[in-house]
Amino acid sequence: MIYLDNAASTQIHDDVLESMLPYLKEQYGNPSSIHRYGRLSRKAVEKARKQIASLINAEPSEIFITSGGTESNNTALQGIATKHSSGQIITSSIEHDAILEPCKKLSQEGFDVVYLPVNNFGTINLSDLKNFLSEKTRIVSIMFGNNEVGTIQPIAEITKICHEHDVLFHTDAVQAVGKVPINVRELGVDLLSISSHKLYGPKGIGALYIKKGTLLNPLILGGGQEHGLRSGTENVANVVGFGKACDIAKSNLNENISHMKKLRNTLVQNVSNGISQVTINGDPENHLPNNAHFTFLGVNGEDLIIKLDEYGVAASTGSACSVHTQKASHVLQAMGFSHEQITGSLRLTTGIFNNENEIEETVEILKKVVQELRSVSPFKEKYSFSKN
Amino acid sequence: MIYLDNAASTQIHDDVLESMLPYLKEQYGNPSSIHRYGRLSRKAVEKARKQIASLINAEPSEIFITSGGTESNNTALQGIATKHSSGQIITSSIEHDAILEPCKKLSQEGFDVVYLPVNNFGTINLSDLKNFLSEKTRIVSIMFGNNEVGTIQPIAEITKICHEHDVLFHTDAVQAVGKVPINVRELGVDLLSISSHKLYGPKGIGALYIKKGTLLNPLILGGGQEHGLRSGTENVANVVGFGKACDIAKSNLNENISHMKKLRNTLVQNVSNGISQVTINGDPENHLPNNAHFTFLGVNGEDLIIKLDEYGVAASTGSACSVHTQKASHVLQAMGFSHEQITGSLRLTTGIFNNENEIEETVEILKKVVQELRSVSPFKEKYSFSKN
Repeated sequence: MIYLDNAASTQIHDDVLESMLPYLKEQYGNPSSIHRYGRLSRKAVEKARKQIASLINAEPSEIFITSGGTESNNTALQGIATKHSSGQIITSSIEHDAILEPCKKLSQEGFDVVYLPVNNFGTINLSDLKNFLSEKTRIVSIMFGNNEVGTIQPIAEITKICHEHDVLFHTDAVQAVGKVPINVRELGVDLLSISSHKLYGPKGIGALYIKKGTLLNPLILGGGQEHGLRSGTENVANVVGFGKACDIAKSNLNENISHMKKLRNTLVQNVSNGISQVTINGDPENHLPNNAHFTFLGVNGEDLIIKLDEYGVAASTGSACSVHTQKASHVLQAMGFSHEQITGSLRLTTGIFNNENEIEETVEILKKVVQELRSVSPFKEKYSFSKN
Repeated sequence: MIYLDNAASTQIHDDVLESMLPYLKEQYGNPSSIHRYGRLSRKAVEKARKQIASLINAEPSEIFITSGGTESNNTALQGIATKHSSGQIITSSIEHDAILEPCKKLSQEGFDVVYLPVNNFGTINLSDLKNFLSEKTRIVSIMFGNNEVGTIQPIAEITKICHEHDVLFHTDAVQAVGKVPINVRELGVDLLSISSHKLYGPKGIGALYIKKGTLLNPLILGGGQEHGLRSGTENVANVVGFGKACDIAKSNLNENISHMKKLRNTLVQNVSNGISQVTINGDPENHLPNNAHFTFLGVNGEDLIIKLDEYGVAASTGSACSVHTQKASHVLQAMGFSHEQITGSLRLTTGIFNNENEIEETVEILKKVVQELRSVSPFKEKYSFSKN
């Protein structure tokens, strides 16, 4: 099986699993316990916190561990907004549901939420942001790299503009961390969400970077773990694995980026050359190194995924999470895609464990599958598909 | 090292870890992905949901997976309360902070929170509950078994009373599941919190039982996982391990209870016989089978824990989580204990992996340690301690 859905989840790195095992076996203490077992767990959590911080050049005390990217996003938005009784929240129209849904909730609670439009590459317009920012703005949240089309936003510029208006800036960097060099000091962001399972760590664990001095309300209250910001017994083994994954990501960042980018570029080039009437979506320059997003005219993306699966390729139409809502991609809609273009979309995301052979094989399979599907397409006449 | 802090966290059962490994290795799909990898993960999550449901005789569709007991408690309280703009919440004065802190938050948001007192065994008075219940009551939350002294509340009667007033009832059963037979159908409870790491499963995973038809607001919003009640990519490996832990707990329930109870009783008896001026706290009849809670007059509990740790016994003064707040036990205060009694308290909680020898050894160590500490106690004259 060729796994090209690395944006949905990644395989745990062997060394990550290795680092977790002691905490799934004999070192089972609750980090809050004061005896030896507890102290060993506490030490492991704090070591991991340093590793996570180091990947984005934060202080360990600025890293708050959560159950994953979704909780990090919810904590940032709900945590900042509810410091006020009302006000404005600015986000974009192409955010993940883990941003859009909390925004919808806050809107129901009386907050005014502005969804910035994007151009057909999926990029927001900085003038729009400037126009909407006001003294009522409580937080701006714009994702780092888009989960569907991979477009990267101008985060440093956005932060600068927000700060000129004394407004806090959060970025959902779940897809970007480990695939783009990220330095929170240089970027200046106030809050940044990370997910472990997108960077070869375990699922169910993530972090929210919170710049020193930034105050927010906790979402989950109780025993006071994570300095009161996130209560609940720490998921020690997963925290340790997450820390190790960050450590590995940091050590191999440049070579990983090169590897994923090379595979992605080969894929895009060979698909472009080998299959007719296909478009490559997202920003052609500023995009995640591992994201290839296509539209195959006249093909239904879901059928494509199922056929690819039969032929041994794991792919996606877009966000894995959207399967629950069954809606058409709001990202592609915001980018101005027609219904037909949205329907024909395919996301292939490369990862550190993929190789050239897999990419070549995938292109051959894709050629075959697209041709098969087009031969029975209701749009067959309309587009008079060439045999690739 | 003798681990007698099983109420804080437990060792993962070998078979649980075994069941998790495939999901930490080759089966890394996101359960929301529609390809093979995704479907395998989805299947595993749903199998685990059945196992969790089965342990408490719920329907799988009534089990909502969370990141742990704390999140389950927060979801129950905040999720139900925020369905209303105001009203009353009834809880007890001996709840875990994962109940008390969300209550405090809801109180700040305008809800009226009533904390029922307890007697000196730590049991609430059903007449008090009846007196406070009104048409303004949105939810009653009373813990199943107390995490410090082990006292079990009359859950079935409480549920009956709540339902006579058409009020929803939630119980934090984190310490009770796997140690007491729990049948949600028979009990009639509307919501019940479970934590995996208290029953030989992994940390960072838990569940909220929500009786069919009970509506509540989600805390964490996004991709719509868990029927929209708890978004975020499922922590597949930990869910699988949690399911397996429930399965094992169900199969071995009676023998586990007998084993833990036998060790606990031996411990209590030998301590009572071997050490003077000690009291056993909690309800002498209705208590968790694994909980032994003592007060050693004239001894500082923290010193005791540290000494026991040096001698190779992992113990606790009470709640592990309270280490963050450093307050005196609110549970013991509510039970009418004096400051001196609270200071001298020790919790030893047996588990399925403990054996008789460990208990005997622990008693010998305790005798020695208590004598050592009493010999330098500022209360030495006051109590004229006998040499055990």
